[in-house]
Amino acid sequence: MKILVSNDDGINSVGLFKLVKELKKIGEVTIVAPSTEQSAVGHSITMQIPLRVKKHFVNEKFFGYAVDGTPADCIKMGIKNIMKEKPDIVISGINNGSNAAINVIYSGTVSAAREAAIMDVPSFAISVNSHTPKQFDYAAKFAAKMAQLVCKEKLKKGTLLNINVPDLPEEEIKGVRLTKQGNSRWNDFYEERIDPYGVEYYWLTGEMDFKDEELDRDAYALLNGYVSVTPIHFDLTDYAMFDKMRNWSLDSLK
Amino acid sequence: MKILVSNDDGINSVGLFKLVKELKKIGEVTIVAPSTEQSAVGHSITMQIPLRVKKHFVNEKFFGYAVDGTPADCIKMGIKNIMKEKPDIVISGINNGSNAAINVIYSGTVSAAREAAIMDVPSFAISVNSHTPKQFDYAAKFAAKMAQLVCKEKLKKGTLLNINVPDLPEEEIKGVRLTKQGNSRWNDFYEERIDPYGVEYYWLTGEMDFKDEELDRDAYALLNGYVSVTPIHFDLTDYAMFDKMRNWSLDSLK
Repeated sequence: MKILVSNDDGINSVGLFKLVKELKKIGEVTIVAPSTEQSAVGHSITMQIPLRVKKHFVNEKFFGYAVDGTPADCIKMGIKNIMKEKPDIVISGINNGSNAAINVIYSGTVSAAREAAIMDVPSFAISVNSHTPKQFDYAAKFAAKMAQLVCKEKLKKGTLLNINVPDLPEEEIKGVRLTKQGNSRWNDFYEERIDPYGVEYYWLTGEMDFKDEELDRDAYALLNGYVSVTPIHFDLTDYAMFDKMRNWSLDSLK
Repeated sequence: MKILVSNDDGINSVGLFKLVKELKKIGEVTIVAPSTEQSAVGHSITMQIPLRVKKHFVNEKFFGYAVDGTPADCIKMGIKNIMKEKPDIVISGINNGSNAAINVIYSGTVSAAREAAIMDVPSFAISVNSHTPKQFDYAAKFAAKMAQLVCKEKLKKGTLLNINVPDLPEEEIKGVRLTKQGNSRWNDFYEERIDPYGVEYYWLTGEMDFKDEELDRDAYALLNGYVSVTPIHFDLTDYAMFDKMRNWSLDSLK
């Protein structure tokens, strides 16, 4: 199995190392990851400036390619210029922090997997539900098993999986849940601060406002100790609203 | 009508000026836009560094607020810290270049409108189908009419509109089409170049590969001289795949 791995925490992240270690047991792994952390970059791509690609060494041994761009850039570059062929699967992670519910919109980790899906390559994003995860090992093993399941069962074109794993030891994981994107959102605000020169600056902070109470919703399953697996796509059309809008007199706007 | 305006081309862009001029005829306009161009940033938000907000003057007259962040940052900042209340509508644009089909995923313009929808504020993004538009005036007038229609007809919560306007004089516009997100994608590649120091760099370029031939698909309607209006949302769940995956033995992965 040919596997392309990326992430948004950067090529030096522990989550990426743990993931790669497990994936090397089941396939041929190519790593193309951002040279620096790219959290919350959404589905950003670099067009206004060029990209650089550098070989990245760990203990003097070639590890992978570092791109001074976004996760989505890494996938484009990885498939088009580095592998020069489509891998069997793209895996993005393991991310520090949940990408459940509304986070899927902001996530760089998910955007790497989405870019693969846009290029018709099966893919998933995998995240651990903590900003200081202690339990990457279970998530890494889960990713390897999921890669094999995806290759057997097949995703439809244009679909990717968004996987979120509790930050718990293996024996405390309750199971695996097929989920939908949850409705939880951020209760966020800007902290106003004053810099050493007396000028204001604003720093975004806040807490997740948990909305769902069903185990088939990603954030709620995760909160209750389950691995959450959500199939997502990039057709953003709101078909229900499309039907309603047939009654809007749009032609009167011409 | 209280209107919050943003964009991704930056607070100094002609498209924004033209839009604001028309909107001031129908409501009270607050402008919060990126201080510099933010194209293809997707739904990026700034969390790792703080934001600065500066008052922006045009001919010594206060025009709006410039944020050194992304379009989505501008909406959060605009509603939470500047307006300190929800506007009746958020309008993002007028963008230089189409945001039809797959572009909706990469678009900073759309992300501003999407951030508003996440905050339960009605919104739309509006773009002109040229990177050097000659015809902003029609799109600006269209935006003002659409703002009034949206306030009358109401969007459902979580839905925003993605509007794309041909770069044609008013008399050549064929009409207005309700559309779905099209299937056209980029045939893109990295141009490999050598810098003055002999080192390679890579610049993304390419052409849109047009896929659809129905006037209810955004890019095709636009190509044929119609204004395209697409209702989109941010529930990315792929419900068809969700149903199929009930037969995957996910629990065996535990």
